[in-house]
Amino acid sequence: MALEISPVFLQKKLHIKHKIIQIISKDINHAKQLASQYHCQYANQIEQIHQDTDVIIFALKDDVLLQIANSYSFQDKLIIHTAGSIHLDEIKNISNHIASIWCVYSIQKEMLPLSESVPIVINANTEDSLLNVNVIAQSISQNIFHFNDEQKSFLHLAAVFANNFTNHLYSLSQQICEEQNINFDVLKPLIQNTAEKVKHANPALIQTGPAIRHDQQTMDKHLQLLQTETLKKIYHLLSFSIQQKKEKYRT
Amino acid sequence: MALEISPVFLQKKLHIKHKIIQIISKDINHAKQLASQYHCQYANQIEQIHQDTDVIIFALKDDVLLQIANSYSFQDKLIIHTAGSIHLDEIKNISNHIASIWCVYSIQKEMLPLSESVPIVINANTEDSLLNVNVIAQSISQNIFHFNDEQKSFLHLAAVFANNFTNHLYSLSQQICEEQNINFDVLKPLIQNTAEKVKHANPALIQTGPAIRHDQQTMDKHLQLLQTETLKKIYHLLSFSIQQKKEKYRT
Repeated sequence: MALEISPVFLQKKLHIKHKIIQIISKDINHAKQLASQYHCQYANQIEQIHQDTDVIIFALKDDVLLQIANSYSFQDKLIIHTAGSIHLDEIKNISNHIASIWCVYSIQKEMLPLSESVPIVINANTEDSLLNVNVIAQSISQNIFHFNDEQKSFLHLAAVFANNFTNHLYSLSQQICEEQNINFDVLKPLIQNTAEKVKHANPALIQTGPAIRHDQQTMDKHLQLLQTETLKKIYHLLSFSIQQKKEKYRT
Repeated sequence: MALEISPVFLQKKLHIKHKIIQIISKDINHAKQLASQYHCQYANQIEQIHQDTDVIIFALKDDVLLQIANSYSFQDKLIIHTAGSIHLDEIKNISNHIASIWCVYSIQKEMLPLSESVPIVINANTEDSLLNVNVIAQSISQNIFHFNDEQKSFLHLAAVFANNFTNHLYSLSQQICEEQNINFDVLKPLIQNTAEKVKHANPALIQTGPAIRHDQQTMDKHLQLLQTETLKKIYHLLSFSIQQKKEKYRT
């Protein structure tokens, strides 16, 4: 899941209300290019971090972030990480002031979202750090949620279901169509409609389909059409889960 | 899946270009109410079908449709059924002229779609019937596809993946959030974005998340957080399927 604040996105808004002092990237040309855009210094070594900065934002992959947190210390600076599933105490050695900004969105450079609507989850280890990270977050989005690290982990997990798994179901649906020379376009209005409805309705209450109707005849037909064991298993398991959830709602 | 043409929807557009002669419903009051709206006759018995009609549209549940097809015969009339998974030859005894109109959309009375964009799948047992059903379909939508019954069955199956199963993933995602007192609203922009992207991109090629990255550490964390066997199984199976599909694309 590309649920991280891309440096591009961060800078897009950040530099309006905050002074960007330095950009560090392993790729010195990338750092140089961005630095010229935002009129700041650049470097490619973490040891070269500018001493005057108040805040350091680490927009890094999980393993790189953890490695840096165990090797460096910036006691007087506010350290902000942007990883969805790293807890603050996993990087507690890096500073006394740590916080996180996590953008609950799948950001692509070519398709930057309208900044005001992007949900941003913040967390911090002290009240002061929380106030500071909130100020920074507000310069990126007006849609800010404060969750603790445990909630954030569950939200990251829930996003895997709502985004990654959903996208995979689209791809399986497309595969079924393609194998029969059916233009996948025919399903696109339905996909949009299903996503649209969840904006206002509880998805459990608007569930439709053969599984929730216990229409075993249609389900048997479908299982016969499916051509791989994995697809049959997915059909079985998700249908079972729909029925199990219905029972739970009833009792 | 509520993938049927609701009589309300059909009539909404149908009556502009075609003359509705009679509405039949088991619920005589419902029939009467609709008939007054469309200035036609009404009845509550199939035996009372008006002799002057050229076309009879059966918007019925699968089992009721099959039962009627085996009990009645209307040899000179065009019979149109609206079921997603019934083949024409399953109702071949009812007439020499049979066709189907299937609306690939989840229609709710309160939220009727813009008629021009709704994909309609048509099929018929003869060229003449196909021409006739096409004329009728065009009075409902400009987005018409002609698929044979076998393709239609696969499309119905693909719709279960893209609509019913996807909606269920939303509901599981919401459940994970609710159990942690997380407002599900925080995921809604991501859900919209994921559905939006599939309009233009191949979902297999834009798959993100820990599974496709083979990020086993994050997947193990997620599996520990999941609190029921069914959720763990779904996480395992869909992650496996994402990885399996990636391998297939590579080879």
